[in-house]
Amino acid sequence: MTTLAIVGATGAVGSVMIDIIDARETVPWSEIRLIASPRSAGRRLTVRGQEIEVVALSEEAFDGVDIAMFDVPDDVSAAWAPVAAARGAIAVDNSGAFRMDPDVPLVVPEVNAAAAHSRPKGIVANPNCTTLSMMAAVGALHRAFTLTELVVASYQAASGAGQEGIDRLQAEIAAVAGKDVGNRSGDVREALSAAGLSDESPFPAPLALNVVPWAGSWREGGWSSEELKVRNESRKILGIDDLKVSATCVRVPVITTHALAVHATFASPVDVETARQVFAAQPSIVLVDEPREGRFPTPADVVGEDPTYVGRVRQALDFPNTLDFFVCGDNLRKGAALNTYEIAEELVRS
Amino acid sequence: MTTLAIVGATGAVGSVMIDIIDARETVPWSEIRLIASPRSAGRRLTVRGQEIEVVALSEEAFDGVDIAMFDVPDDVSAAWAPVAAARGAIAVDNSGAFRMDPDVPLVVPEVNAAAAHSRPKGIVANPNCTTLSMMAAVGALHRAFTLTELVVASYQAASGAGQEGIDRLQAEIAAVAGKDVGNRSGDVREALSAAGLSDESPFPAPLALNVVPWAGSWREGGWSSEELKVRNESRKILGIDDLKVSATCVRVPVITTHALAVHATFASPVDVETARQVFAAQPSIVLVDEPREGRFPTPADVVGEDPTYVGRVRQALDFPNTLDFFVCGDNLRKGAALNTYEIAEELVRS
Repeated sequence: MTTLAIVGATGAVGSVMIDIIDARETVPWSEIRLIASPRSAGRRLTVRGQEIEVVALSEEAFDGVDIAMFDVPDDVSAAWAPVAAARGAIAVDNSGAFRMDPDVPLVVPEVNAAAAHSRPKGIVANPNCTTLSMMAAVGALHRAFTLTELVVASYQAASGAGQEGIDRLQAEIAAVAGKDVGNRSGDVREALSAAGLSDESPFPAPLALNVVPWAGSWREGGWSSEELKVRNESRKILGIDDLKVSATCVRVPVITTHALAVHATFASPVDVETARQVFAAQPSIVLVDEPREGRFPTPADVVGEDPTYVGRVRQALDFPNTLDFFVCGDNLRKGAALNTYEIAEELVRS
Repeated sequence: MTTLAIVGATGAVGSVMIDIIDARETVPWSEIRLIASPRSAGRRLTVRGQEIEVVALSEEAFDGVDIAMFDVPDDVSAAWAPVAAARGAIAVDNSGAFRMDPDVPLVVPEVNAAAAHSRPKGIVANPNCTTLSMMAAVGALHRAFTLTELVVASYQAASGAGQEGIDRLQAEIAAVAGKDVGNRSGDVREALSAAGLSDESPFPAPLALNVVPWAGSWREGGWSSEELKVRNESRKILGIDDLKVSATCVRVPVITTHALAVHATFASPVDVETARQVFAAQPSIVLVDEPREGRFPTPADVVGEDPTYVGRVRQALDFPNTLDFFVCGDNLRKGAALNTYEIAEELVRS
């Protein structure tokens, strides 16, 4: 008898979570409990053919819960994941509240599943979506070749900024479409304004017909918080304290699926053929790498897919022990709900 | 008395070239001759207020020409630049035909102007637009710190594929706008098909709401020709035969202006403050780097601008002597017509 709770069940990631649970052949849960803010309590959602009433977030809501998955803002997780843990549940948290807490494991099951079983606070953290989008691929290569350095540039989708990000990009695209205005900043802003779009945006610059080299908040040295997450979370998940990482995080006018250009250096010699075998041996990776036939992963091909897609695998011409490749992962699935659920499955399996 | 010819005067880059010449306060040319295919001969274009009739490409068209700028396909340049040189003109060629020819200098005036004055074949080559978009910034840093390694990822605009690329992206944007289809590949392709767009595209995958990790043609080892151009042309322009370079070239749904995330390693210690001074001292660079105030370069801000825009300058946290930064350059101006014209100005000045 195992009870799973979804905290934030009515949110964007929560609804992807329910899709994922619906699509599973079997589930190990005797009860699935849906928890959300008092405002959403009383709503009825269907999970695996069964209507379930959403209950309001409260201490009592966690009574009898074995695993509670949190898909809520950082401050809600910070306040409530410890409450769930105190009531005896294992909290699996997809916010940024606990990821770098030394007493909270940060887990990608195909990379460091064992870490999930040592949790002094009763909490397991799910990584940031950008880190997650490449981690299955990077982790597999690390096992084979021992990773020492990562230089990455991201192509991040608007849905990384939530439903608000999706709505904004779609409204901007509609505003510039068919206008033949080119993409000069003044013309784009005029088109947005003519379409009634306010200057208030989840993005710090127009995103339609543009790319925006900023995600998250400002950090010492001019880094964005997103870039430091890629660095610090990669180190923690892989267990390499001195991993060298430089990341540049850039938002692109794509709705869903993050992509990254990865330049990865290893302690051991690498070659493309062995790397392909490493990827082929990992069920959560799909290799699409026949560029002569126009076959490589693009974000549009990966939307709604569970695996990480890898392509453009090349041996660096001038850097020893180094591979360059391109990776795409659905930021709402493996990048968020799917990995959280896979952690819950790992916990119940053991 | 100096005569300048524009070969390919009626093309996309040719018309930007005429805009650039129109905007110059003064020009050193006593005659400007417009040359194009026989199909375009007889058309009349206005340059600096004067109507000029386009003449057909022929050997005689180069009689009396001092400098002939070529903005034509590779095969046309390969055939005709030597003809212009044989008639006594200096050919400044913006195709890929001669860039890696050891007897042809590859020139970015603010980086290696002197190279333009040694030209065994009477030909000077203009670099590829992706290389050019970062070269002013990279060259300035090289002079200060001595470059040893470059890892770059590009965000390349549709106009890099010519007017056909612009038209395709605009048609795709119009087809997906307001459809609320998300960006799942099947849905996007259906929207393109419903809008009457054929599968024939200058891009190997849909570009609207997507990014495409491929530009150019296939090369040994899975590299794209565009990625090898970035490597080989950077080495030649900077005069560093053993420069280590890895590039990943990705097309993004932007009309004009290429952007690159650059990770650059040097022989000497670097710091952000000195790098900022290096950029500030270079008239062809504009530094926009106050991310806390939402100020960084985006492609839309740079369309139609001559300078290279640089921002997000950070000292790498884990790599010695290394800077990470983001650079934007209008691929039709500095990336093509402007640099070609600046080479012509350099030649006539000397």
